[in-house]
Formats: sequence, C-alpha cells, structure tokens
Amino acid sequence: MSEQNNQNTRISDLGEFGLIRHLTREVKLYQESTKRGIGDDSAIMDYSGRQVLVSSDLLLEGIHFSLMYTPLKHLGYKAVVVNISDILAMNGRPEQIVVSLGVSGKFGLEHIENLYEGIRLACDKYHVDLVGGDTTSSVTGMTIGVTAVGSAEKDRVVYRDGAQVNDIICATGDLGAAYMGLQLLEREKEVFKKSPGVQPDLSGYDYILERQLKPEARADVVRLLAEKDLVPTAMMDISDGLSTDVLHICHQSDLGCKIFQDKIPVHEQTEKMGQELDIDSTTAALNGGDDYELLFTIPTSEYDKIKDQKEIVPVGHMTSPDFGCYMVSTSDHQVQLKAQGWNNGRG
Amino acid sequence: MSEQNNQNTRISDLGEFGLIRHLTREVKLYQESTKRGIGDDSAIMDYSGRQVLVSSDLLLEGIHFSLMYTPLKHLGYKAVVVNISDILAMNGRPEQIVVSLGVSGKFGLEHIENLYEGIRLACDKYHVDLVGGDTTSSVTGMTIGVTAVGSAEKDRVVYRDGAQVNDIICATGDLGAAYMGLQLLEREKEVFKKSPGVQPDLSGYDYILERQLKPEARADVVRLLAEKDLVPTAMMDISDGLSTDVLHICHQSDLGCKIFQDKIPVHEQTEKMGQELDIDSTTAALNGGDDYELLFTIPTSEYDKIKDQKEIVPVGHMTSPDFGCYMVSTSDHQVQLKAQGWNNGRG
Repeated sequence: MSEQNNQNTRISDLGEFGLIRHLTREVKLYQESTKRGIGDDSAIMDYSGRQVLVSSDLLLEGIHFSLMYTPLKHLGYKAVVVNISDILAMNGRPEQIVVSLGVSGKFGLEHIENLYEGIRLACDKYHVDLVGGDTTSSVTGMTIGVTAVGSAEKDRVVYRDGAQVNDIICATGDLGAAYMGLQLLEREKEVFKKSPGVQPDLSGYDYILERQLKPEARADVVRLLAEKDLVPTAMMDISDGLSTDVLHICHQSDLGCKIFQDKIPVHEQTEKMGQELDIDSTTAALNGGDDYELLFTIPTSEYDKIKDQKEIVPVGHMTSPDFGCYMVSTSDHQVQLKAQGWNNGRG
Repeated sequence: MSEQNNQNTRISDLGEFGLIRHLTREVKLYQESTKRGIGDDSAIMDYSGRQVLVSSDLLLEGIHFSLMYTPLKHLGYKAVVVNISDILAMNGRPEQIVVSLGVSGKFGLEHIENLYEGIRLACDKYHVDLVGGDTTSSVTGMTIGVTAVGSAEKDRVVYRDGAQVNDIICATGDLGAAYMGLQLLEREKEVFKKSPGVQPDLSGYDYILERQLKPEARADVVRLLAEKDLVPTAMMDISDGLSTDVLHICHQSDLGCKIFQDKIPVHEQTEKMGQELDIDSTTAALNGGDDYELLFTIPTSEYDKIKDQKEIVPVGHMTSPDFGCYMVSTSDHQVQLKAQGWNNGRG
C-alpha cells in the first residue's frame, strides 16, 4: 500500500476530530432506540424495558485479516457483520454499533474512507446505527474494535446453556467455505510473492471468496424463527468452526452430542477447492471457522416448523453427558469432537 | 519483560476458552441491571426505561501506554477508569464493562493475570460489572479494547452542546499532573537506557506519577452534583487537555469562551516538576491530557450550590461565539485556545 501514500490526503491534515467528522458525515440512523449517536462521550439508547445486549470484538491485522488480500471496504463490512452476528446469536435484534480504530502512518485518508464505506454499507444492509467512532494512531498496522448493541424481549433471549437431551442440532447455510476461501487467497499470495507479474487465478471460486471476504450475518434466519414462533433452546454463531462451537453448547448445557458427517452442509465450491488443495472439506467445516452461520438446538416436537427451510439443516442431536461429543463419520466411525487451540486463531 | 517469559505459564497451555474462564473466575457482579455476564455471545442488561449509555475505547501499546514503565496491573486499572470516565461525563452511572484483549507471544499468563487484577480492582472500586471478556493473539504488542455501559435518567443526561452564554466553566481536581508524570517517566527511561544500572529517581513525585499510572474517574463529583440537585448545562471529561476539551464544548454549543490562566488548578508537584524539566505547567494543563477530570458549565444562578467544594474550580465563562475562545494569561494577554493535532496523540 505504501506506494499510494503520496497521493493520499494525510490524516494529520484533518486532525483527529476533523477525521471523525469527515468519516461519519454520511452516517444514517435507522433505529428508534437511538437517542444520540457520534459526537459526545458516549452514545445514548432507550429500550423501554427490552433487554439490552452488548457484544465486543477486536480485529487485528495479521491475525484476523491480512491487508494483502482483504480490500479495506470488505474489511469494514466484515467487522460489522461479525459483531452483529453475536447479537443475532442471542436471538436479539442488532441496533447500534460503536467503532474504534487504530491506524498507523502507512494509511492515508482514502484507506480509512474505504474502510468506513464498508462499515456504512453493512449498517445500511442490516439497518444498524453507527453511534460512536473513535480513531487513534497506532505504532504498527490496523486494529478495529467493534461493539454491537442490540435488544430482545426477555423471554426470547437464547443462551448457550439451554439445550436438552434429544434436541435436534441445526446449522444454517453451509460450513467451511470461508476457510477454503482463505486457503485459496493464501495460495495466490504465495504465487504472487514468487512471481509478482502473475495475475491471481480465482475464477470459478467466487462463492468461497465472498464467504471469506464479505460474510453475511443470519438476520434472515432470526426473523424466520420469529415468524415460525420458534425459540431455540440454545443458540450461538459458528465463528470458530462447527466442532469448537457445538462443544460450547455441550459444555454449557452439560450434555453430549452426536453429529453426522453426511449431514454437515458443505457447498460444492468448498468441496471442489478441498480436492484441489488436498484439504478435507469436513475438516474445514469442523475447524475452519469464520462462517458466521447459526448453530441452534430445538426440541424434536418443533422440527416440523422448519423442516421445509433449505437454509436450516439438522446435523445431529444432543445426548446425555456420559455419551460424550462425537461425530459419526460417513464410514460409520465415531470421531471425538475437539475444540481448537489458542494457536489456531479464529480460523 | 522477555527475560521473565520462561517462568510463565504459556497461554497456549490453557487454550483460549480456558484462559477466559481462568481470568474471570473471581469476577464479582454488583449491578441489578446485569442479567447475564461473560460466557455467551453477548452480555445482557435490563434498564427498565432508563437511558443506556455506551462508550468504547482502544488502548494501544506504544501510543496510549508503554510497558517499559506501566505495570500491567496499573494498565488494567487505567483502561477501566478511562472508559467509565466517559459515562460519568454524560452525568451517567457506569454499570458494566466489556474487555477485549489482543496479546502477542511475548506475554505469559502471569502478565495477563496482572492486567486482569487491575481490571478487577477498578471494577471493585467503582462497582462496575465485568460482563464480557475476549482474548485473542496479536502479531505485535498489546491492544486493549474496553466498552463501558451505563445508564442515566432521561432528563439528567448532560451533553456537550448545552452550554449558554455567561455559564461558568468549572474543572474538577487539578490539571496537567498526568502529563508531567509522563515526562518524568520518559526522563527516567532515557537515563535507564544510557545507564541500565542506575535506579530511577522518582522520590517526591508520587502524586504526579499516580495521576499518570493510576488515574481515577470522578464518580464522586457526579454523585455530588446529584446530591446538590445540580444538572450542568454541558459536560465532558478532560482527556485531551483543557484547551482541546473546552473547545469541544464551545464548538458543539456554538459559543466562545474566556478562561483565566490564574484560575487553572495545578498541583504543586506539577509546578515543581515543570520547573525541573523546563515545561510550563499551564501548557501541561492546556495540552497535556490524560487527567480524566470533569469539565462542565453551569448557570451563574447555580454557582452557590458548589462554591464551597474544593474539588470544583471555576476557570472561566462561556461567551458569545464572535468573541472566540481565549485564555487570559497572568500577564493579561489574550491567548487563543487551540486543539491538539492528530500527531500529538492523546497526551
């Protein structure tokens, strides 16, 4: 990026406060609950009795994203989506976000504008209000802190600890695509490093690339559950991979689980890329992460309400705790589910 | 810090989720509004009709703190204080915080435990509930993201834009001490770099050091204002220095101001250190920042309510906008107030 710096407006020309004013001048507010947005010490919301949900995340350059293949606009979009996904995972309604940014001198105004364009795009898509923005300089690289705020009716909040024995475990969409998209980007990065003239070959893989670079949160599924008057017994979003995340529900609900390899939804591009890169697509779904699909449990008696929904797939069921947490493989072996370690990051 | 690493438990031994459980096992909850804390996708609060305040900050190593002279326990304490100060500055009551941490491999478990010890200490002191904690690895250094959540009665929230002509401008405590403490630490760092054997000479400067390393938020002043039934017309906390921060109130209230150099409260240690380091103590108060005192405006008719409070000092008054924003110096010159630029950081 450094070559472009000279053409860029320097952030110091605007000053910190001028920068925030500049970046947030086109911010629209959608939510009735938003009483005051950017420009004071804190944002102000009024929920008149609904429960208030707050979730916060840090995205760090080199860990959660690489600017070598992540366009800043996509990064801004993803930073918002990842956070509102946590509110949706409580069966809540995301309403506001607060963004804190740390940027080093290698970034010019245009870079941060691109990032904010992505942030605004996500806010527009999900009707979420950007109510706080703060930008400071950093020593190295870019850090994005996002806090999402939402609300829910008290008796409709869904925790991770409410699953019951025999509940059906459901996943939305498909899994492992974001991870496989990342592997493709990594491969092309290596090719580019060796031969800078070669254009990346990404054709035919638009779906898995979009899943990595521009994921969506499942607001549609949360709306659907409300329409069907179905409150899951437990729910979370799949950010660390199906294996790690179903284990969260098992541990917090004090139960075991059995999931079936042949039920795990995998997109055909994920499958194809897996063959090309010699990565098992089930492994990508179990341990890849970054999917931002929803994982939830429902009583068998409620299954009829969603059985015709293509976007919701039953992948197994909860068991008594002494059964343990297993996947039944296509070759009918029982494979113990494992959580990802610290060193694997978030996928 | 690197010499100590071998004695430390490695974070990867615990795993990410084990780490959070370990760090938050002693967290106490104080607030009735806290319905669910750490352990799910988001925290849950219930304010039954009060307004909800949300404020977020990033603290970056090398910009907002240097681990060369900031003990991690102090850093954790300060990270909390800085954020709840923003809620207090709205005349609100801080009730919860969410902490996101990014740490590189150079930090061991003991380091993060020290940081959390400081976080818990601040939570205990201010009766604020830690309701969310997230720790990820980072490529370099340490990043702390803190979101503070609070509440206020609707008609008692104080913005920055409500000041009126002739309102008295008040500051709390004293100003410039944190900046002067930082200069002392910087001086000793340089001495240490040149002669590693020399012990730092910090005697007699405990007050300015504590102001830099372990600042407090003015919850006491906000309580006092409530007791006196006094709602300021405008308020904010002094994080960037008196000059920058009074300009925020001027710009947002569309007014000018006149402050008086001889009224600006400066501690004797700040004065003394200033003479030693050849730094003007007024400059430290105007541009130093990091004081976390409160700055507020009140109608002259309300002044009697606080005139006997030692912790509250009138420093000037609001004027019509065409007057501009000035400080009257001790030599009776009018000095235009300026905001700090991007490059100066937060002081």
